[in-house]
This record gives sequence, C-alpha cells and structure tokens, in this order.
Amino acid sequence: MLDLAAFERNLAAMQRWADAHGVALRPHAKAHKCPEVALRQIALGARGICCQKVSEALPFLQAGIRDIHISNEVVGPAKLALLAQLALRAELSVCVDHPDNLAAIARAMAQAGAHITVLVEVDVGQGRCGASDAETVVALARAAQADPHLRFGGLQAYHGSVQHERTREARARICASAAATAAGYAELLRGHGIAVDRITGAGTGSAEFDAASGVYTELQAGSYAFMDGDYGANQWSDTLRFDNSLFLLSTVMSTPTPERVVLDAGLKSTTIECGPPRVWQRDGLTYVATNDEHGVVKVDAGARAPALGEVVKLVASHVDPTFNLHDRLVAVRDGVVEAIWPVAARGLSR
Amino acid sequence: MLDLAAFERNLAAMQRWADAHGVALRPHAKAHKCPEVALRQIALGARGICCQKVSEALPFLQAGIRDIHISNEVVGPAKLALLAQLALRAELSVCVDHPDNLAAIARAMAQAGAHITVLVEVDVGQGRCGASDAETVVALARAAQADPHLRFGGLQAYHGSVQHERTREARARICASAAATAAGYAELLRGHGIAVDRITGAGTGSAEFDAASGVYTELQAGSYAFMDGDYGANQWSDTLRFDNSLFLLSTVMSTPTPERVVLDAGLKSTTIECGPPRVWQRDGLTYVATNDEHGVVKVDAGARAPALGEVVKLVASHVDPTFNLHDRLVAVRDGVVEAIWPVAARGLSR
Repeated sequence: MLDLAAFERNLAAMQRWADAHGVALRPHAKAHKCPEVALRQIALGARGICCQKVSEALPFLQAGIRDIHISNEVVGPAKLALLAQLALRAELSVCVDHPDNLAAIARAMAQAGAHITVLVEVDVGQGRCGASDAETVVALARAAQADPHLRFGGLQAYHGSVQHERTREARARICASAAATAAGYAELLRGHGIAVDRITGAGTGSAEFDAASGVYTELQAGSYAFMDGDYGANQWSDTLRFDNSLFLLSTVMSTPTPERVVLDAGLKSTTIECGPPRVWQRDGLTYVATNDEHGVVKVDAGARAPALGEVVKLVASHVDPTFNLHDRLVAVRDGVVEAIWPVAARGLSR
Repeated sequence: MLDLAAFERNLAAMQRWADAHGVALRPHAKAHKCPEVALRQIALGARGICCQKVSEALPFLQAGIRDIHISNEVVGPAKLALLAQLALRAELSVCVDHPDNLAAIARAMAQAGAHITVLVEVDVGQGRCGASDAETVVALARAAQADPHLRFGGLQAYHGSVQHERTREARARICASAAATAAGYAELLRGHGIAVDRITGAGTGSAEFDAASGVYTELQAGSYAFMDGDYGANQWSDTLRFDNSLFLLSTVMSTPTPERVVLDAGLKSTTIECGPPRVWQRDGLTYVATNDEHGVVKVDAGARAPALGEVVKLVASHVDPTFNLHDRLVAVRDGVVEAIWPVAARGLSR
C-alpha cells in the first residue's frame, strides 16, 4: 500500500534537492519496478530513469519513458541483443568495466544498426564492479570514442555500501572520498582530451552529499520515494528527509497466546536480509520470527494485542527486493484507494 | 533450472518411503508453486497436495488437481469467500485453531452452499499457530461435527522448527515428542467418541521419522523434490536421501580482480535468510556478498576463476521463497531443455 501524500512529499523533496544543487535527478527504477512511479518522478523534473537489468527496462519503455540508463554491466549475447533493440527505441546508456564487454556491446549495436552511450564504471570504494586503474579507464573511454556505434558519456561512480552508514558524519566522509576518486578519473580523462559529460551515482543515503559535491552531475537514488527499515535507521538532516510511504498490510491469522499473534505475511511478502519488518505505529508489538508464510509477533505485557482478523501495517526492512515479490501497488489517499499500479518489471532480473 | 533425472529420483524416493510405511504422501506445493511438479507427484501416487494460502490453490485447481489441503488458518471474509468457491470445485480441507474462525468458515460455506473438511491444528512444539489445550481441541472438533457445512477430518500436527535440526538424532527425538503430543490429542478426541481419520504433518527433514511414527497418516513434505542449501546441511540416512535437482544459472558480469568475480544473480534471484547461495561443484569459489542484483564471488588462491560471460550454477539456500521470485522453471534432461514449466502460483500469497 502506497500512501500517496507521503510519496508525493518524498518525490518533491528529492527533486528540490537536486534542483537546488544544479544536478540532474535520474531515479532508480530497480527500487520499485513500477512505471507509474517513474512517470510521476519525470513529471516533477527527473531527467529519466535508471534500470539495473536490461530486461527491467522494457515495461518502462512501453510506458513511454525514453531516457534510460542501465546502471550496470550487461554481459552475454542474449542480453546484448535486447540492449541493442532498446537502444533503437530510447536514449540509452550502459556501464562497462572490461574491454571485452565493450567490444561485445559494439558488435551487438553494429548488428542491429543501433547506437548507445557508454559510461565507464569506476570503483570508488565499494569493491564490487568497476575499473580501478587509470590505464583501464582511459582505454575504455578511448575505445568507446573510436567505435562508430558507441558514444563515450562519462563515468558511473556509485558507492553502495555507504548508503546505510548510520551517521551523517560517516556518510559525508566516505562520500567525499568517493567523489574525490571520481573527480580524479574525470581529470585524468580530460587530461587526455576526453570530455566527461556525466558523472552519475548516489543513492538515497548519499544523495545529500553527492549532490553538493560539485563532482556528480546526476543522482540515481530510488528508495527515497518509499523509505524502509534500513534507511529509516540512518541519521537524517532536517533539510533532507523522507517519510515512510510504503506499507504491507497483513492480517492476524492466529492468536494462540496473549503474548503471541501470528500474521499472514512472511518471507513471500517481505524480505529480511536487512532485518524483520517493523510493526507500524503499534506500541508493544514486535515482529520477531519470519517464516515462509507466517510472521510471529510478540505482544509486550500491557500492550493491546491485535484481534483475530485485524489488519496490521508493516514497514519492510528493504524496499527493493520486497517490491520484487508483489505484482501490484495499491495507491491510497486519505484512506481511499485512488489507483492500483502494476509492478510491471517484477521478476525481470535478466 | 531443474535437473529432471535428479528430480524424478527424489519424487520416487519419497513416494517409496511413504508407501513402505503405509502413509499417504500429500506433497506441499508452497515449495515450488508449479502445477507441473504437482501433477508428476500425483502420477507417482501422491494423494493430493497441500497449499499454504487459499489463493495459491487456484492454479493447481486449474491444472486439474482436485484434492487440496490448505495447511493453514484462513482468516478474513475475502479469503473465506474464495475458500468456499474452491470447496465447490475440489475435495478441500483447511486448518482451524480458533472457534471464531471456525464459525466464519461455516458461514462462508453456508453462503456458497459449499462443504469443507476441517482439521484442527495443534501445536506440537513449534510455538506458532495451533491449539495447545485439550478443551479447545475438543470444542473445535465438536463444532465442526455439529455444522452441516463442515466435516471434522482430524488433526494437523506440523512441527516446522525440527526440519533443520542438523543431526538425525535430534530430529528423531523432537519428532517422537511431536508425534506423542499429536497421538495424545487423537486419543482424547476418540475418548470423546470423535473419529480422527487424518493426522497430517511432516516436512522434508522430519518425514523419515514421522512416516515411521505410527501416528501420522499423511506427509506434507515439499522441498525434497529439489533440496537446497539448508536441507543439504542436514545429516541424512543412507535409506532416505535426496539429490540437488534445482539450480540457478548465473552469468559472470564483471571480473575486477583475480580474487573477485561478480555474478548477475543477487537478492532478486535468490533469498538469503538461510545463508547465501552455494557455487555448485566449483572448488575454491565462494559466494560471499549478496546485493540486490549482484553476487560477489571470492576466488581462492590457485582456483580457476570463471571468465567474463561464463555461466556459474548456484544452489539456493532456501528453495521456497527462491521459487517465489521466478516465473518459469526450465526442465533439463541430459543437458537438453525438455520443457518450460510456469511457476503459476508465484506471488499468490493471500
């Protein structure tokens, strides 16, 4: 269930933040996989969207979105053939961190008669994907410049693990280091006469700092529209903060003891790699055990236990994989259902 | 990807075990959510299937399966209306543990002109749902007997937390205790002149013992058809054991350092509440970090690192919620795709 009032406040707050700092907002669609969400972000001023997988982009293209960045490496002939078909129909960019992959992208584009913008992904401290030496970065940029079907667009410098550092001080410090690394690569390229138009990155936890860095030109944050338990545990500033807009409605299916009630929402309704879901605004109720299809809630002494059949609102700990379990989002305003939005890219993980 | 040879061996082994002990096999469909799997189990002798949610039963009914046990409490008017519609079309049973729920089921059946078999769920040690006092068990059974739209069918005595006790000795001991508790309730009811036709329960980890208990009449195991990392860590006997038949095929999308490769399968392809997935039959490769769409694999010194674009097989740690992420199962025999089976109940968690 999406609380539209909170959702719209969140969208406006991040767009204002990007505008105030002169950077583009390109919200990440992997968080929600729902074209209706993306269309509202674009209507408020977002430049386009990010997708994390090439297949994930399809429903957004079908919804009319024409500026899509695949913020990831795309490897393998089937995926590259699809990437080329998308590139024929949208302003598309994709990340590379290996010359063989760049060559394969170029071949797929040539075969389809398509063109694509290539961003070199650089590792700015996460230790996941991305090039981490000057020679590779320059070679990839030059190879992209030299190919008639590719255009070198700049750098992707995303730091995932900083997003959930709890204190603003830690996030500020790590973001400064990541931005300095990204700026170093950009200077290197410019020193070789290679223009760096875009430096893209930032998530919900780092956007405050990345927007103000003077390095990033584009913010990829996605979860800010909804929030979750993991981002809720971060320390936020007064000037940039977001409200919980996304809730999972569960029903009490068993009341075996005064201290224990069982909900009908478990692992197939919410993921727990960032902890169990939280019961929303009900003092003394703690979701303590997540089974496949059950959630066991502990009722503190003195707390009002929910009755059999009562609906209990939950806040997921991690919004992205939780969205990926659901086919529909029920959008509510003032307690009334306003729309039901398909989570059209659910399951499109290739 | 389903390895059909291993899958068929697993199906045959569990059916033989049930037959040898004179108990019925009613495999749980929540493990796979795939009607094609259930049809093959029934063809080998299974009595019917279990579903955990009422909506989950729909694709199995559509596939022609007519004997379905909802192994769970079903609460709330919308779900009970659907339960009644199913009961008009199948031999249906459902669990109860509360008199108000039993009364609501009876009303829903009366309204639809339907009939349903009711099993009283008893808590045999898990501490989740289920009645745990003699008075409630007898009252529920009598209320079911007295209602013209209900039939009292027996007991559900499922113990979830015993399934992953690692040693056979611990599982044997806990199963004996659960069976004794179930037998006590059955004796109690028979002492009140109430017939107890079915005592249903058992999972993949407890089926060995529950089948031989002399108490259970029906086994609900589901994961045995596929196995996973969590069940693989159990100690097994030589007479009843199962092979890995289910694999997740992932592709190497980045090779940033000699010690690290990145796969394209993360939290949206496999769940990690029971630990990360395991790399299948590749010495020296360990899946160490699961992000939303990336899996980071550590390459030990001296091990052969997979190349960019290479396909790496993974074994999920927990099969049930992992199936719930995927829309299709690719069935393979001798390296050739034989069929693609829809995971038709994916996402049907209500």
